[in-house]
Amino acid sequence: MARASNGRQSSKTKKTLRKKLLPKTSHKAGRPPGTLVHIGKVPTAAADIRRIEYNPQHMTDQVISSPLDCRPSAETTMVSWINVNGLHDLPLLEKVGVNFTLHPLVLEDIVNTEHRPKFEDFDSYLFIVLKMLHYDIPSAEIHTEQVSFVLTPNTVLSFQEKQGDVFEGVRERLRNNKGRIRKMGSDYLAYALLDSVVDSYFVILEQIGEQVELLEEELVSRPTPETLNKIHHFKREMILLRKAVWPLRELIGGMQRNESALVTDATGIFLRDVYDHTIQILDTVETFRDVLSGLLDLYLSIISNRMNEVMKVLTIIATIFIPLTFIAGIYGMNFDHIPELHWRWSYPALWLIMLTVGGIMIYYFKRKRWL
Amino acid sequence: MARASNGRQSSKTKKTLRKKLLPKTSHKAGRPPGTLVHIGKVPTAAADIRRIEYNPQHMTDQVISSPLDCRPSAETTMVSWINVNGLHDLPLLEKVGVNFTLHPLVLEDIVNTEHRPKFEDFDSYLFIVLKMLHYDIPSAEIHTEQVSFVLTPNTVLSFQEKQGDVFEGVRERLRNNKGRIRKMGSDYLAYALLDSVVDSYFVILEQIGEQVELLEEELVSRPTPETLNKIHHFKREMILLRKAVWPLRELIGGMQRNESALVTDATGIFLRDVYDHTIQILDTVETFRDVLSGLLDLYLSIISNRMNEVMKVLTIIATIFIPLTFIAGIYGMNFDHIPELHWRWSYPALWLIMLTVGGIMIYYFKRKRWL
Amino acid sequence: MARASNGRQSSKTKKTLRKKLLPKTSHKAGRPPGTLVHIGKVPTAAADIRRIEYNPQHMTDQVISSPLDCRPSAETTMVSWINVNGLHDLPLLEKVGVNFTLHPLVLEDIVNTEHRPKFEDFDSYLFIVLKMLHYDIPSAEIHTEQVSFVLTPNTVLSFQEKQGDVFEGVRERLRNNKGRIRKMGSDYLAYALLDSVVDSYFVILEQIGEQVELLEEELVSRPTPETLNKIHHFKREMILLRKAVWPLRELIGGMQRNESALVTDATGIFLRDVYDHTIQILDTVETFRDVLSGLLDLYLSIISNRMNEVMKVLTIIATIFIPLTFIAGIYGMNFDHIPELHWRWSYPALWLIMLTVGGIMIYYFKRKRWL
Amino acid sequence: MARASNGRQSSKTKKTLRKKLLPKTSHKAGRPPGTLVHIGKVPTAAADIRRIEYNPQHMTDQVISSPLDCRPSAETTMVSWINVNGLHDLPLLEKVGVNFTLHPLVLEDIVNTEHRPKFEDFDSYLFIVLKMLHYDIPSAEIHTEQVSFVLTPNTVLSFQEKQGDVFEGVRERLRNNKGRIRKMGSDYLAYALLDSVVDSYFVILEQIGEQVELLEEELVSRPTPETLNKIHHFKREMILLRKAVWPLRELIGGMQRNESALVTDATGIFLRDVYDHTIQILDTVETFRDVLSGLLDLYLSIISNRMNEVMKVLTIIATIFIPLTFIAGIYGMNFDHIPELHWRWSYPALWLIMLTVGGIMIYYFKRKRWL
Amino acid sequence: MARASNGRQSSKTKKTLRKKLLPKTSHKAGRPPGTLVHIGKVPTAAADIRRIEYNPQHMTDQVISSPLDCRPSAETTMVSWINVNGLHDLPLLEKVGVNFTLHPLVLEDIVNTEHRPKFEDFDSYLFIVLKMLHYDIPSAEIHTEQVSFVLTPNTVLSFQEKQGDVFEGVRERLRNNKGRIRKMGSDYLAYALLDSVVDSYFVILEQIGEQVELLEEELVSRPTPETLNKIHHFKREMILLRKAVWPLRELIGGMQRNESALVTDATGIFLRDVYDHTIQILDTVETFRDVLSGLLDLYLSIISNRMNEVMKVLTIIATIFIPLTFIAGIYGMNFDHIPELHWRWSYPALWLIMLTVGGIMIYYFKRKRWL
Repeated sequence: MARASNGRQSSKTKKTLRKKLLPKTSHKAGRPPGTLVHIGKVPTAAADIRRIEYNPQHMTDQVISSPLDCRPSAETTMVSWINVNGLHDLPLLEKVGVNFTLHPLVLEDIVNTEHRPKFEDFDSYLFIVLKMLHYDIPSAEIHTEQVSFVLTPNTVLSFQEKQGDVFEGVRERLRNNKGRIRKMGSDYLAYALLDSVVDSYFVILEQIGEQVELLEEELVSRPTPETLNKIHHFKREMILLRKAVWPLRELIGGMQRNESALVTDATGIFLRDVYDHTIQILDTVETFRDVLSGLLDLYLSIISNRMNEVMKVLTIIATIFIPLTFIAGIYGMNFDHIPELHWRWSYPALWLIMLTVGGIMIYYFKRKRWL
Repeated sequence: MARASNGRQSSKTKKTLRKKLLPKTSHKAGRPPGTLVHIGKVPTAAADIRRIEYNPQHMTDQVISSPLDCRPSAETTMVSWINVNGLHDLPLLEKVGVNFTLHPLVLEDIVNTEHRPKFEDFDSYLFIVLKMLHYDIPSAEIHTEQVSFVLTPNTVLSFQEKQGDVFEGVRERLRNNKGRIRKMGSDYLAYALLDSVVDSYFVILEQIGEQVELLEEELVSRPTPETLNKIHHFKREMILLRKAVWPLRELIGGMQRNESALVTDATGIFLRDVYDHTIQILDTVETFRDVLSGLLDLYLSIISNRMNEVMKVLTIIATIFIPLTFIAGIYGMNFDHIPELHWRWSYPALWLIMLTVGGIMIYYFKRKRWL
Repeated sequence: MARASNGRQSSKTKKTLRKKLLPKTSHKAGRPPGTLVHIGKVPTAAADIRRIEYNPQHMTDQVISSPLDCRPSAETTMVSWINVNGLHDLPLLEKVGVNFTLHPLVLEDIVNTEHRPKFEDFDSYLFIVLKMLHYDIPSAEIHTEQVSFVLTPNTVLSFQEKQGDVFEGVRERLRNNKGRIRKMGSDYLAYALLDSVVDSYFVILEQIGEQVELLEEELVSRPTPETLNKIHHFKREMILLRKAVWPLRELIGGMQRNESALVTDATGIFLRDVYDHTIQILDTVETFRDVLSGLLDLYLSIISNRMNEVMKVLTIIATIFIPLTFIAGIYGMNFDHIPELHWRWSYPALWLIMLTVGGIMIYYFKRKRWL
Repeated sequence: MARASNGRQSSKTKKTLRKKLLPKTSHKAGRPPGTLVHIGKVPTAAADIRRIEYNPQHMTDQVISSPLDCRPSAETTMVSWINVNGLHDLPLLEKVGVNFTLHPLVLEDIVNTEHRPKFEDFDSYLFIVLKMLHYDIPSAEIHTEQVSFVLTPNTVLSFQEKQGDVFEGVRERLRNNKGRIRKMGSDYLAYALLDSVVDSYFVILEQIGEQVELLEEELVSRPTPETLNKIHHFKREMILLRKAVWPLRELIGGMQRNESALVTDATGIFLRDVYDHTIQILDTVETFRDVLSGLLDLYLSIISNRMNEVMKVLTIIATIFIPLTFIAGIYGMNFDHIPELHWRWSYPALWLIMLTVGGIMIYYFKRKRWL
Repeated sequence: MARASNGRQSSKTKKTLRKKLLPKTSHKAGRPPGTLVHIGKVPTAAADIRRIEYNPQHMTDQVISSPLDCRPSAETTMVSWINVNGLHDLPLLEKVGVNFTLHPLVLEDIVNTEHRPKFEDFDSYLFIVLKMLHYDIPSAEIHTEQVSFVLTPNTVLSFQEKQGDVFEGVRERLRNNKGRIRKMGSDYLAYALLDSVVDSYFVILEQIGEQVELLEEELVSRPTPETLNKIHHFKREMILLRKAVWPLRELIGGMQRNESALVTDATGIFLRDVYDHTIQILDTVETFRDVLSGLLDLYLSIISNRMNEVMKVLTIIATIFIPLTFIAGIYGMNFDHIPELHWRWSYPALWLIMLTVGGIMIYYFKRKRWL
């Protein structure tokens, strides 16, 4: 039963591992670079585009029906945020790309949902790819969704794989004119979106941390083979998580060092803050890895301890009774001439001898600290 | 009983691990950056502010009742040290921030008590976040308290989570005009505070070192499963300690390389000294980690040795007596026709054979160095 | 049977390991540098040369019979791609080298098929050595074939060990004038060929990833000693793969930083893309290594667990029955005076005692959680 | 007995570990920086000062009675070497410091005998702290003694904890005017002293190397639990040794890169030589660590091998005799109706069956390669 | 027998380890730097000097009898290669040093045969120390011989410990005027000698690789404790080999970056080639280390597997027969009142019960996959 469920888990695992590790760009081997190939699952919902335009005074929020309308705003006093959900509608994306004169490789990276997080400066715009993470508590698995940003002087384009994101707080602040967001430019908007993604990692680390603690408690109080599977599972999730967050440092560090006119100094200070958070996330991931390695060592030591304890019990019992059984066997023999058999007190004397032998052995084990 | 206490310990551990590893900034996901969210425990004591002003001739030490009074000193010939205990009074902190024109992100970092130690130069002031450590001997756990410094031309602001700190020596020297502290500027004061924090780490390392030595002694003389738990516990404390002190190197190194006019050359030499101490602390933490890894290896080897010894005893006893018991069993059979049963000397002859077999086996084990 | 097949596998392995690790340049120890020594297997097929010339309007594709024809094109408006299959025809290669004025060390590196991937700038041409990988699924082994490129202003020379390559897609795009390839220079062609090689690595990683997943599934559901052999096999393949791909980073990074006039800025952007892919491949290889190390740890833990379980069963059975057998042995003795033998109820009483002893032991094991 | 001696050893170890790892600067927490606190043991012998002055023609060697005489030489054509033995006489040291206008932190570092080796340039003088090592063969422990140098234009100050050093060779060369030492300045003298310290490390590494070899021999020929303790001991000594020598690289590298006018080019070449030796020492320490880790692995493998061998013997004996004993038990039963008991040839037949069963088992074990 | 030979091997090993790891410069502690101390074995053969002079037209090859003749050639149109075999003739070396105005430290490094490979630029000449390796197949040990080069504008001096080297190929090319060697200057000669040494490392790696393959084969087909010793032996040889080749990278990299006028650009390209080979050697050594670590892990896993298998057999046999023997023991008791003993069918019934119990157990083990 447990084995069967392990089997199921591992077959799910299998898909996850392949999905997480393999970029699947192999499907496009042989095609010219810049060819758009969507490699995620095709969702049933249609792709939708939503544009939010704002300045300190006004804000509009509308769903755009035609990609033709998805072009740089003529109105330069307003900042636009155009969010595209769904990467399977390749003609739509191509049109958006043409409207904003994006390099073909940028579009290729946007739809290649297995891309490594990175930052690139194309002079007239900045391009950022990173991962939104979602932690699925029941299966204890981390799911990733790629999100890409293109930052132009007064517009931020964002591309997501599917509905549902971590940007609701940003939208809220835009709507309610909270904080400084409506007063600042598109670079601050891009920062705010980046910050939302990075902050959401803390939530996931907290959830994982909680489970690692439960695991540690379980390990100390009542370790089972299942505990081992869980440690192994979390170790592997950490390998994958690390692969996802490690490039972040480089990404945001690169943005900071970048001297593009697109990022103002005022926003630069905020980027420094995101950078600090990124370092903290990396630290925490490494710490979790160390903690999990420690748990595995502990598990192995506990198993060794137990085996030692089991062996001791076996050895004590066997060592005491095997010689006594031998003695009993001697006097169970049917030789005609065993003089002891006929003595009056030999049975009680034998008991005495046996108790003495047993007592000596118990004393010996006590001295060896086996008891 | 032991198990139950382990359970309790680990449930305490659990809270500690989560508290130590997880920045809990997840509570502020979605809020605008710069929002003050206090994430520590709310202490019952009210926040209090204490201002010490001094020059080589005079010194005043007063508790400030209203945050309105907590502003840069007009009197520029005196150096001020304003210490704030308690970070839960957010409005108060905001007022202090406004008085000293601190960047909103600085205030956010001050109240975010899980922040990574760091140094930042805001031109008109320097900002430092680090950890005061407290080692609780009964539970063998390291508790951290965040302390932040803001260094302006003639004022040092310090922010602590709660009452109790490691600065009593500095206050003493200020009061008694010991050493050069009263003769020098706010940068020297900031150095003196930093130095107090770093020096206090040595005390903790010394206490931990003592316990690691006791552990080593216990391991060599009488290792128990409890010893394993302790090794594991210290290994994990070292992972956490390392996470706390590693950024220190960067922090103080950054201060040294920083060419801010706020730090004079005279103080720079002292910073170099703190830097040396920091490197020494890091070295010692790494050395403890190595020593603890060595202890774990040793523990496993000792367990293996013991199991080997247990197995040998079992094998010797079983190997000697199992064949003899078999022989006794043979002559316990009730066949009508077993000629040996009726021979005159077969019983003593059998004893002779048995002793010979046993002797040969003992000789064999001796040659194999099992005895 | 299984052992025999292992023997066969390892003897095949042997050849592979030596072939993969050892450059065999030892055959040329003592010869002057620049001496051409072909060190691969001599294929039976003759070496052949194929030249593709193109500009946006035209394209020719011909097999060149004489190496004398294999010289820089006079027609500078066309880009040439000259591909040489087979490195055993040393006189032919020497003639090609003379025609294109290649440095003798370049030719030596081309025919030394165990060379480390590298990039070198000889001012008038660029020289690239790298590996095409082929993953043989039945034996789960990675085979390498060296391919070298020489990029001159309007020609790309490519040298392969044998028929069969990963460039069919490039030829297709040249034939059908797909993408921008026909419109750009020889540097873009070199990029396209490099990109084909790097993309083919993803296919191999995907295949290995699939097998690693199967291995993980097998490990969790029904681990056998064969599973261990497979983990070991993949670990070793990863060591070798890593050795093959690690220099790639340096190679393509070097090309990017190189300021040769031979690579235009337009192509430079594409090289950045290949660089990203290379980093992703390295990440994936490292991740596989981590995953495989994790699997080995898991395997050892599972073995420990099983041994523990086996030991428990043995201990329970032995510990219950050895004392009972001893008791039975006692009353099998033939002493004349054993009063219990003659009591009326001693046989059922003995059963009662034995069941009680057994019951107590089972209860003890239950409390110890061994049952 | 062995255990008791272990206990004693580890209690000695305890002091050593604490002494070696912990800087004990905790005693000065709270005091102003620059406060002199001597933290070593207070030797009974009084501190003494010895001054050697020389130029190519003359040399004087005198013990200085009053610290007032311990001041820069007026006679600038002679080089002075002032050696102070004993750091517990703080007033004396303070006077020396004043005479040579040393920074208070320099004096603090001199008396803090747990300081990390370092090099610092104070413009008018250079300051060097490092460790003299002494290897105590009976206890196989490395003892450290701190030695500090201050290099001024025509004087070298050296400070040692106690009598006895490694500079006898330098004094000899000074007395006998051997080599170039009398012809060169104070920088060459400082180099010669540094070189003496570094050379003495080689002696220690040679002694440790010898013991590691004996350990390896013991491990291969007759490993005991004591061998494990020794491996562990040397591993820990290596951790401590490494901590002592690792900063040397930085120290001497820093001196080399330093462009102070105090070190002439002629001496610079000799420093390069010391630097080479330092690298070689670090290499050797790392190699010892690798060798010792290898020995530990080997020890564990040997234990595993032995346990396997023990298990095999137990299994063979038990597996052969347990079934035979069962058969004998069958015919020892007292049922009234066991027909075989009354057959004529059943006893010899039974022997035949038993020998056959035993033979089959032995054959089976042979095929399994257990015999 | 096997143990004895191990003992002998390890005593040989001992000498090797000490010789390989310890520079033995301890013999010169206390002597002035620049003192020549020969620390290798003193060979019986006398040191000999051989001078080869050549230009494109002529070549002379003569043994020099007096060190007085060993001086820079007046004839500047010819390149000289002066090779000194035997470092024990210190007066001779000192004279050579004087003739070529070598720094005393250079001579010290030449005769210190345990020196770390290094490159040093003395403006008027370059100095190179490195190791020739010799792999002794029967003992599977690597022997090192130090060789030093001094490159002056038209002369190369080489110093070897003893007769026999890897330069025969270079001499051959000089004699037969093969390749470009006679046409180029002393820098090319130095390169050719370096290249010979580095190429000879490949031969050794190939030989070791072959033995590692045999070891792997042995490990998979029939692992014995001897296999473990071999793995350990190769691991240690790799530690030592790595120590010998790791400095090579730095050495040749340093030569490449060095802008000495002594090395022409034409030769620089060839040095780049040697550098590539050095990297490849380092890669291969690291790969061997990884492969050997993998083998050790595999060995331990195989031992665990076997122990598991042994335990299973023991457990199956014991678990089946111990209860059955108990039952037989019951009916071997001599109680007067055991009713079963007198029933007609109890003997065959008992057999039935025993077979059933055994069958159930076998079924249980089958389900547990122990059979």
